[in-house]
Amino acid sequence: MSSGKRIGILTSGGDCAGLNAVIRAVVHRAVTTYSWQVLGIEEGTHGLLDRPVRHRVLLPAHVDGNILRQGGTVLGTTNKGDPFAYPMPDGTKKDRSQEIISGCKELGLDALIGIGGDGSLAILRRLAQEGGLNLVGIPKTIDNDLGLTEVSVGYDTAVAVATEALDRLQPTAASHARVMVLEVMGRDAGHIALAAGIAGGADVILLPEIPWTVDGVANRIRQIRAQGRNFALVVVSEAATLPGGGKARQEFTDGQKRYGGIGSYIGHLIAEATGAETRVTVLGHVQRGGSPNPRDRLIASAFGVHAVDLIAHGKYDRMVAWSNRKVIDVPIADAIKAYAAVEVDGTLVRTARGLGIYVGEPIA
Amino acid sequence: MSSGKRIGILTSGGDCAGLNAVIRAVVHRAVTTYSWQVLGIEEGTHGLLDRPVRHRVLLPAHVDGNILRQGGTVLGTTNKGDPFAYPMPDGTKKDRSQEIISGCKELGLDALIGIGGDGSLAILRRLAQEGGLNLVGIPKTIDNDLGLTEVSVGYDTAVAVATEALDRLQPTAASHARVMVLEVMGRDAGHIALAAGIAGGADVILLPEIPWTVDGVANRIRQIRAQGRNFALVVVSEAATLPGGGKARQEFTDGQKRYGGIGSYIGHLIAEATGAETRVTVLGHVQRGGSPNPRDRLIASAFGVHAVDLIAHGKYDRMVAWSNRKVIDVPIADAIKAYAAVEVDGTLVRTARGLGIYVGEPIA
Amino acid sequence: MSSGKRIGILTSGGDCAGLNAVIRAVVHRAVTTYSWQVLGIEEGTHGLLDRPVRHRVLLPAHVDGNILRQGGTVLGTTNKGDPFAYPMPDGTKKDRSQEIISGCKELGLDALIGIGGDGSLAILRRLAQEGGLNLVGIPKTIDNDLGLTEVSVGYDTAVAVATEALDRLQPTAASHARVMVLEVMGRDAGHIALAAGIAGGADVILLPEIPWTVDGVANRIRQIRAQGRNFALVVVSEAATLPGGGKARQEFTDGQKRYGGIGSYIGHLIAEATGAETRVTVLGHVQRGGSPNPRDRLIASAFGVHAVDLIAHGKYDRMVAWSNRKVIDVPIADAIKAYAAVEVDGTLVRTARGLGIYVGEPIA
Amino acid sequence: MSSGKRIGILTSGGDCAGLNAVIRAVVHRAVTTYSWQVLGIEEGTHGLLDRPVRHRVLLPAHVDGNILRQGGTVLGTTNKGDPFAYPMPDGTKKDRSQEIISGCKELGLDALIGIGGDGSLAILRRLAQEGGLNLVGIPKTIDNDLGLTEVSVGYDTAVAVATEALDRLQPTAASHARVMVLEVMGRDAGHIALAAGIAGGADVILLPEIPWTVDGVANRIRQIRAQGRNFALVVVSEAATLPGGGKARQEFTDGQKRYGGIGSYIGHLIAEATGAETRVTVLGHVQRGGSPNPRDRLIASAFGVHAVDLIAHGKYDRMVAWSNRKVIDVPIADAIKAYAAVEVDGTLVRTARGLGIYVGEPIA
Repeated sequence: MSSGKRIGILTSGGDCAGLNAVIRAVVHRAVTTYSWQVLGIEEGTHGLLDRPVRHRVLLPAHVDGNILRQGGTVLGTTNKGDPFAYPMPDGTKKDRSQEIISGCKELGLDALIGIGGDGSLAILRRLAQEGGLNLVGIPKTIDNDLGLTEVSVGYDTAVAVATEALDRLQPTAASHARVMVLEVMGRDAGHIALAAGIAGGADVILLPEIPWTVDGVANRIRQIRAQGRNFALVVVSEAATLPGGGKARQEFTDGQKRYGGIGSYIGHLIAEATGAETRVTVLGHVQRGGSPNPRDRLIASAFGVHAVDLIAHGKYDRMVAWSNRKVIDVPIADAIKAYAAVEVDGTLVRTARGLGIYVGEPIA
Repeated sequence: MSSGKRIGILTSGGDCAGLNAVIRAVVHRAVTTYSWQVLGIEEGTHGLLDRPVRHRVLLPAHVDGNILRQGGTVLGTTNKGDPFAYPMPDGTKKDRSQEIISGCKELGLDALIGIGGDGSLAILRRLAQEGGLNLVGIPKTIDNDLGLTEVSVGYDTAVAVATEALDRLQPTAASHARVMVLEVMGRDAGHIALAAGIAGGADVILLPEIPWTVDGVANRIRQIRAQGRNFALVVVSEAATLPGGGKARQEFTDGQKRYGGIGSYIGHLIAEATGAETRVTVLGHVQRGGSPNPRDRLIASAFGVHAVDLIAHGKYDRMVAWSNRKVIDVPIADAIKAYAAVEVDGTLVRTARGLGIYVGEPIA
Repeated sequence: MSSGKRIGILTSGGDCAGLNAVIRAVVHRAVTTYSWQVLGIEEGTHGLLDRPVRHRVLLPAHVDGNILRQGGTVLGTTNKGDPFAYPMPDGTKKDRSQEIISGCKELGLDALIGIGGDGSLAILRRLAQEGGLNLVGIPKTIDNDLGLTEVSVGYDTAVAVATEALDRLQPTAASHARVMVLEVMGRDAGHIALAAGIAGGADVILLPEIPWTVDGVANRIRQIRAQGRNFALVVVSEAATLPGGGKARQEFTDGQKRYGGIGSYIGHLIAEATGAETRVTVLGHVQRGGSPNPRDRLIASAFGVHAVDLIAHGKYDRMVAWSNRKVIDVPIADAIKAYAAVEVDGTLVRTARGLGIYVGEPIA
Repeated sequence: MSSGKRIGILTSGGDCAGLNAVIRAVVHRAVTTYSWQVLGIEEGTHGLLDRPVRHRVLLPAHVDGNILRQGGTVLGTTNKGDPFAYPMPDGTKKDRSQEIISGCKELGLDALIGIGGDGSLAILRRLAQEGGLNLVGIPKTIDNDLGLTEVSVGYDTAVAVATEALDRLQPTAASHARVMVLEVMGRDAGHIALAAGIAGGADVILLPEIPWTVDGVANRIRQIRAQGRNFALVVVSEAATLPGGGKARQEFTDGQKRYGGIGSYIGHLIAEATGAETRVTVLGHVQRGGSPNPRDRLIASAFGVHAVDLIAHGKYDRMVAWSNRKVIDVPIADAIKAYAAVEVDGTLVRTARGLGIYVGEPIA
């Protein structure tokens, strides 16, 4: 039913651990099971703007060996901009979507597998609809903010890296009687902060989804001291609300002093309110990189195989997803719409509160 | 609604990573939120056989600090036998269930939290029913064979350890052009073998659930050689079927030669069938131990908090469970009945086959 | 020869991995072998300023179990200042050395084991000389800048953490075609930067000991591009010289723009000179913390045992040291004098250059 | 002085972590600094027996990227036998040394870099002398039994893997009140067992170099129990002496029962003498594999660069070595002669005893 197909695969948006495991699975399934041809498109949709289109044929021999264990994406990726409003050197924006669509046609693709987060999948879907492309999506994002799937590729490894940082900050915090603030990624969702904070033994977790107060943090730290412990661990999401509820990612100033980011700003506020010696660590890009952990490799492999199977069955415009130990598939459109922020009264927030962690003010 | 309760907690059966994270969460929730008293019972039901009952009061100060990160169980555990047919020094079996029940009464417990696998939970439930105890169960088993929960405490870490072993065996296999056989735990379920095999890049995975043949393995290895690769990784579940479909865990003999276990026996069969230089590693108890990984810490924490909440709401005879990013609870009886073997045509077997892994003969 | 002694132990200065392994070894050797009493003094010399002196008796049972594997110091440490010029609340400095000496006398110590870097050991030696205390020193510093010992406690683990960060930055650098800058600790010595840079596959390593130029860095990056690689890893020591040779750790400004530190300033210079997309990670306190690696545990254990043996033999004013697979001891005074910066034409600089790494301008 | 050379490189004997880092360093130094040609010979001396000789040109592009981080050897290696007494299919032995020498001549090598342990280096040296080859040796062996160098490539990583196994066995031993026996590699030298045992918190370490008694082990375990601890960790070297002082690696039988190896035999003896529940883990080939740790990468890099420099200076018949933070070189002949067993009264044995570890009977 599916002989002789030629499919393309690209990775789009920020990289993460597990992308190569997806690529490997797609190539094995498509070439070995179905005898199709797989073209790897380089640097996301960007490779489709060049002529000739930047791509390479992917064979099982290319994805054998250590690629499963390697972080990042061998195809490259880029964030250079929305093809519908592409930033040009002269500062203007230009709709370059037709160039991308014609790039796909030039390659003679029967179907395209796009690995991306909600933003990338939305753009790829629009391109697919305008260009009549057969698209299957695979969710990846360390932020884990995609709905309709329990987990996206890259999230579990990012949580592991952030948790390990807390494991390393705990003894130095204790030795010096300090408050250690760790700023983690996650964009507008607090999933990494919440999961790593619980797993890493944090005392305070500040999220984009839940308002908090400096008093709340200071109370928790005073409580800890009253129980005879002289240090504390604080996890701050990169888009945590500001005290009072404002929005982060702007300039952080306090009178004349400027702070490098939300982490150092909050560190300053805590130091002021509690008198504690405070140090701030911004974990940054190490959260993206590194070898995918077993769960990311497993889910990535299942996603890759299932995406190829969807093409074999002619099921397009769908995103693979993970649900209750199984791979399933859902309409891409629904997945994009179902943005998954941290549930403010969900299991993990309740768990955090049950452990005595301050995660912002309870909902009245 | 829940003031002044006294609850007990015990860990039963084989130890695993994450038990201490459960204990920590139970203590925090019960003491800090509800102001209850928590008694830690030592060495599973065994501690309840002694008089005075072996136990200690658990306070938040006891579970603060590094316990979250430590493997095993600070309460101790034991496999010394079914209290309904307890092995006595003289070789006879004796029903000691009433002693355990009276031990619980002696402690004046309002409720008991039992952390165990299917065997332990079945025994605890029977004890609870006979003795009128209020029981809440928390699932733990590296084998992940408990139904009605996506995952049990300890499984994710065990898979990580087994995967890491494959990551280490791969380069030495490649350097010496060898077939490396790794025997992993899992009792009658192949979950660890299957997940670690996929995540660790295995070429062959032999499970208890799927019959396989030496020819099938040898064919896969010949295929690999034909593609120009000179080594292979084989994962064998400790209870993998024997070639032809027989049951493992018996004496492994081949004519006059005896083999130490299923792994070395299968290694011998492969060496004979393919002429390959073969080495066998039996991973053993390192799979149980070590620091729980972040997911195990997270799930353990959620389970501990929710178990206490169930008691607060007077919901007994229930097991906490994980489902689709949430903690839920189910009847213990149903969970025990719903044994979760590897689904022979489920997502992971299909994924393995899609990657070209030999996982036994396809179901006709 | 050594019956009935009472010895004190304290950790001073910045914490690091392996301090607890030293404490454990001291307690085992002193109590088990010699039947002495060991008093753990809390928070470095700071504990000796309080009355009663803050201390606790350390028994083998206190250091059994997991302390060997835990980062930081169970005794606490502090950087609150030189006791000969102690910063008082009113802003003045005061000589409080006699208080510390009388604190030691109050405890009735026969000898004191001080674990510290060059600064701490110099202060402790001066106190010992003024107060007639019997001092043995144990070198610890992640900076590895103490002379007369191959290695100090904490260094190997810090290098491992920094190397791991490079292992994680490499795939994300490659996926996005970026220059990744990693700022590491080390104070005025470049040992961490140099060792981690070589071990982690860096392309550029900037040290305090060797002048460098933006042109030199940019040339190396252009060379890499010419060879077809589109990313680069740059390691910057926290006290790296500025381009041209100036001293770091001051305000980093470029016209009107201010930079948070040497790493982000150098990242900016590289971006400007090469047009490369550049990201900066400041590793910070995770380099201090975490479980000591095996070599740190081993050296720490050997140091602890040998320090006690020195006291048993009445050899004071000496520092234990590591040399050619052996523990030795040297005069503290000599060790402090022999500051060990990176040798500008030593093995590791030559190795780095041999690998094509830019480590600043060659010495003419 | 060194233009236009062509050099060969081969890895010989058992593989280990860090070999690829050596190869990478050799290629960078030889090609980039000196513009030489590097030929990688495949499967040790074995590749030189085939015609045409199995080899490939190695360029910097081949060793860029992740090879630094990968275990094993990309050139392959083999243990198939001494070329001076090569095992033939018909069971006889044959001197094939001239074939290997003529293989080297065929390649037109100016010099050969051989990476091996004492056995491999002895054979390569004999070949070099008979064939007039210019040889430089690089020491690698997880056993660390080569003299005149502080450390050989692969040792540090093997110790780390064995230590990690102890870290994982400790909590499960404690939870179940068991004696855990870990059998580690090391051939006739106890370095891995001793270092990992100290670093991993063992209570008993049994070595090839020091006689021990079952009574000695049992006494230590009884002592531990008397102090209130109910578990113990025992590390056994694969060539540990038998109780009484006999030699291991033979058949282990006790009356009618046969044991799979020294570890399980000793486990049985301990169980019998103490009544303890005992479990045995044989770590096996995972000790060889896996990503080299930072120190192995560093030393391997320094060795590779220095080996090429020796050739550039026409210094042959020398082995690179590590001494006091520096790379040096020594005559291969001396290095082979200076076998480095564990010193029975050296630093580490003394350290182990100082920690209360039973390491066999003290020398009278």
